[in-house]
Amino acid sequence: MSVSVVQPSRTAWSRLRPFGAGQVDLRTGFWADRVRINRERTIPHGLDQLRRAGTLDNLRLADGYRAAADSTGATLPFLDSDVYKWLEAVGWELARGPDPGLAASADEVIALVTATQRADGYLNSYVQAGDGEPYRDLSWGHELYCLGHLIQAAVAWHRALGDDRLLDVAIRAADHLPGPLVDGHPNIEMALVELARVTGDRRRLTTAARMLELRGHGTLPGARFGAGYWQDHEPVRDAATVAGHAVRQLYLDCGAVDVAVELGDDRLLGAVRRRWDDMIRTRTYLTGGLGSRHRDEAFGDPYELPPDRAYAETCAAIASVMLAWRLLLATGEAGYADSIERTMYNGVLPGISLTGTRFFYTNPLQRRTHRVLDGAGPRLPWYPCACCPPNLMRLLSSWQQYLATCDDSGIQVHQYAAAEVRTELPSGPARLRIDTGYPWDGRIILSLLETPAEPWTLSLRVPRWCRTATLTGPDGTLAVGAGMVKRHRRWQPGDVVELSLDLPARITEPDPRIDAVRGCVAVERGPLVYCIETADAPGRTEIEELIWDPSREPAVRPRPDVAEAMVGVTVPVLRRRSGAPATAGAIPYFAWGNREPGAMRVWIPR
Amino acid sequence: MSVSVVQPSRTAWSRLRPFGAGQVDLRTGFWADRVRINRERTIPHGLDQLRRAGTLDNLRLADGYRAAADSTGATLPFLDSDVYKWLEAVGWELARGPDPGLAASADEVIALVTATQRADGYLNSYVQAGDGEPYRDLSWGHELYCLGHLIQAAVAWHRALGDDRLLDVAIRAADHLPGPLVDGHPNIEMALVELARVTGDRRRLTTAARMLELRGHGTLPGARFGAGYWQDHEPVRDAATVAGHAVRQLYLDCGAVDVAVELGDDRLLGAVRRRWDDMIRTRTYLTGGLGSRHRDEAFGDPYELPPDRAYAETCAAIASVMLAWRLLLATGEAGYADSIERTMYNGVLPGISLTGTRFFYTNPLQRRTHRVLDGAGPRLPWYPCACCPPNLMRLLSSWQQYLATCDDSGIQVHQYAAAEVRTELPSGPARLRIDTGYPWDGRIILSLLETPAEPWTLSLRVPRWCRTATLTGPDGTLAVGAGMVKRHRRWQPGDVVELSLDLPARITEPDPRIDAVRGCVAVERGPLVYCIETADAPGRTEIEELIWDPSREPAVRPRPDVAEAMVGVTVPVLRRRSGAPATAGAIPYFAWGNREPGAMRVWIPR
Repeated sequence: MSVSVVQPSRTAWSRLRPFGAGQVDLRTGFWADRVRINRERTIPHGLDQLRRAGTLDNLRLADGYRAAADSTGATLPFLDSDVYKWLEAVGWELARGPDPGLAASADEVIALVTATQRADGYLNSYVQAGDGEPYRDLSWGHELYCLGHLIQAAVAWHRALGDDRLLDVAIRAADHLPGPLVDGHPNIEMALVELARVTGDRRRLTTAARMLELRGHGTLPGARFGAGYWQDHEPVRDAATVAGHAVRQLYLDCGAVDVAVELGDDRLLGAVRRRWDDMIRTRTYLTGGLGSRHRDEAFGDPYELPPDRAYAETCAAIASVMLAWRLLLATGEAGYADSIERTMYNGVLPGISLTGTRFFYTNPLQRRTHRVLDGAGPRLPWYPCACCPPNLMRLLSSWQQYLATCDDSGIQVHQYAAAEVRTELPSGPARLRIDTGYPWDGRIILSLLETPAEPWTLSLRVPRWCRTATLTGPDGTLAVGAGMVKRHRRWQPGDVVELSLDLPARITEPDPRIDAVRGCVAVERGPLVYCIETADAPGRTEIEELIWDPSREPAVRPRPDVAEAMVGVTVPVLRRRSGAPATAGAIPYFAWGNREPGAMRVWIPR
Repeated sequence: MSVSVVQPSRTAWSRLRPFGAGQVDLRTGFWADRVRINRERTIPHGLDQLRRAGTLDNLRLADGYRAAADSTGATLPFLDSDVYKWLEAVGWELARGPDPGLAASADEVIALVTATQRADGYLNSYVQAGDGEPYRDLSWGHELYCLGHLIQAAVAWHRALGDDRLLDVAIRAADHLPGPLVDGHPNIEMALVELARVTGDRRRLTTAARMLELRGHGTLPGARFGAGYWQDHEPVRDAATVAGHAVRQLYLDCGAVDVAVELGDDRLLGAVRRRWDDMIRTRTYLTGGLGSRHRDEAFGDPYELPPDRAYAETCAAIASVMLAWRLLLATGEAGYADSIERTMYNGVLPGISLTGTRFFYTNPLQRRTHRVLDGAGPRLPWYPCACCPPNLMRLLSSWQQYLATCDDSGIQVHQYAAAEVRTELPSGPARLRIDTGYPWDGRIILSLLETPAEPWTLSLRVPRWCRTATLTGPDGTLAVGAGMVKRHRRWQPGDVVELSLDLPARITEPDPRIDAVRGCVAVERGPLVYCIETADAPGRTEIEELIWDPSREPAVRPRPDVAEAMVGVTVPVLRRRSGAPATAGAIPYFAWGNREPGAMRVWIPR
């Protein structure tokens, strides 16, 4: 049984195959902790918030549930999707291990969803509680967007648990579609491809492909932010750059990759890759964050990357991981895994508190003052538009699926965490244990627990940020450069390979074309971007009064006061007014906003 | 008859008295041209656009007009205000000289407004065409905002022409107010004070004062951008900094100054001055532009001044002139006139094309690319939300009123243009002619045409940007520094005073705390900020590929190709990639966007 988020079919033009959820076990360390907190705290918190916010009540439209409803109906058309994202997260969690309480809660929610579906298959609480007329506001109604999330939850329950209750609902809802439509918020495209993959029904794929072709001709009415906002300004296979609402663009391109690999459409895949390359080069924050405009949650012009007004929506970072993963599977190129790493640590993770129950919707790289008047305040337990929290839940619940892949030649390890992975290579089963204190420590030890007798290739990603790396194995030690390092040999059980990544604190200069951070530097270590918060400023000086002191070096310093095992960096600074030297503490950016409210900066003026 | 925009009463705690419209005649040169274009092209264009947009039709609610209506009613609640601003502009224009065609058009519009007013005095086409219930949505309804503009138009017609048709309407509409209310968009406060001034009815002043006190307690519902958006977060006399929507804040503070000087409320005046000082220091663009956020048209944090995403709404610059003028009258301090000069040339004027019939709503200091997807495109003939164009009309029609003031000691000249000013000093009439080619030329010659025999003081503003200035008069020549230069003497008809302001092209470095332009310089000359456009880039290089070459000096160069008499600056640059030296042309920022579409920068990277 294949149990991963994205599962290209056997005939797809895809280079790598995902490991399934059951083939990777996170053991201990950084990501195991984050995934555990997601399971134990975030997902239960999510259910509680869905109840409090009335999002579950919105679905109580069926007779049996009406009496229980204490909500007056959804105020936003896309809220059902948050329920589906939560269900998707629970599906992946139950595959990683039983939890009777969680399973019972999910049963209840699935029953609610099932009961709410109309006899004709249509399912959308906002429309059903309203005038009941489907597909009347494709621009802003989010009906296909919600359907897409329903399908993705259904696919997760099918793949992870073999439980088809949601799949039956999803198929009937998808059957209600009158044909290919253009929705103001892409999402349905990738969902239909996944539905085709689990059901074998190629018509879903054809519909998704047609939806892609229909977009880009300016047919969506009500484009108050311009047709580019929802990528309706240029055909998907022509547009040279990303544009408009960041999440919409990235979800659309996820669907485009899914269609492209299934149909062997290299031109379509090429268009997505060109957009991706341009986006990474000209419109991506150091953190992997995407979207520099608040007004329309949108990409800006090339090199328009203000740190203070970075929108960098948590969902856009998640969507970037989803797209990079699809491109990695399709091409096998290590650069996509580099992006996943940068974005997971610095774009996705800042969106959730260390406690797992407080969220950021936007992720600026600078906050000048604690006194915020416009609502961009501290982390919140939920949002009126709550897309990000359950999106984080489903990503974290499937995190280990991004760790490694395989193909006929062997195993590729893309992300590093203490884990055990097992797969069936053409010549037999292989089992690999990874021990590491990554990202705090750069030593990664891979032990072969089981291996076929035939030779095969173990590939390890050396991250692009790494300037000095060595690989020690049965053949000795050698220096390795960035990219995929491949070792083809006849492996023995007990063989050990050690990848050692040097992790000094390093100073990063921005691209000179980024106006907003000209004359600044950032501190990084390993895959992590660092920031200075008021709590770590010397003598609680205002952050804005500090400038970088190039005459001294940053140094690494343990920060158990912020989080267990955390490694911080001490940053040499000068006080702007007096010129007096001082030292500020920097912590990983993902951990900001977890202490007393204050200011924060990633980019420090020189 | 007093004929100026703001006319503090005799008992007001105000230092300077405005010259009336009829006491200053612009003769030739820069501002005379702009004012003439406003009269001959912009105002007729405005009437045409008000017709085309249906804004006049919105008012055709009275029986006699119903048949003529071809509009389905206003789509935005504040559109009536654009009609009133246009009428205000026409009032000032007719005072400057007759124009039978314009007068006839205005008569028609005044008759329309008069007919639309309900029998009970209420007048608002949006509400009247809707449910007819006044004051139900104080937060977003803009009813008192529209009433404020009606009153200001009425005051203009009363002062400029002694025509009280609109004043009768305005008084009846003001009488309909049930008492002091808090409106989501301040404006009514200054209007009521002006109404008190022209009618002598102090109850209007009391109502305005009470409205100021009611605001700032978080009572306005629907604050989706936070209470600070409409300055309802802190009492007007307590708030230490400007906040929220820029035009709202500045209009509110205009009303606060008006109330403060009439009531002798120094604490209230002090609060506005402190906010102003902080705003100029931390939240004002080099151009005088205000408001750095698109999302809510709002001020940002201190030093949050992105050039690319500068909102810098044209109306905010106009409001800044209105507020600075009130503060100048109240205090006599030259710094406020410095601000008016900077903002008039670089904040207001960019909002209107050289032809007078195309407008910018926002005024960024950088445009990276011509290819704009989100609607921030080229200058437009009108906007769906058309607040800026008629606001420009009324400001330009009253421009000469900002030129000079008087008090019992003599005359103060604040702005420089070829003009004749005449006033009655306590000891007799005085008449002064000003000859200058300002702002292109720094020589300003003031000739006394008529003067009392008694000694009096002639005061001239030496702008803060000027590093070398000399004053030559009957007493000889001397170097003078920034601020008001005062000459007290027994003047003779025929006396000539020459102020000579040195006008080299100069390089301006930004405040180091402004993150967004760190490592850049700007070019200025005299009161003008300059910019580089694609059309003037060497070999049409992309603007973004040019960096400043500090080894060479900028030089002055005539630019008759852009506009008559215009003086440009040649800017030494290097090509970023090759390092090859080149020369770019810079033109005054106010003139940008008048040629072929392209990129533009004010701040050039070093």
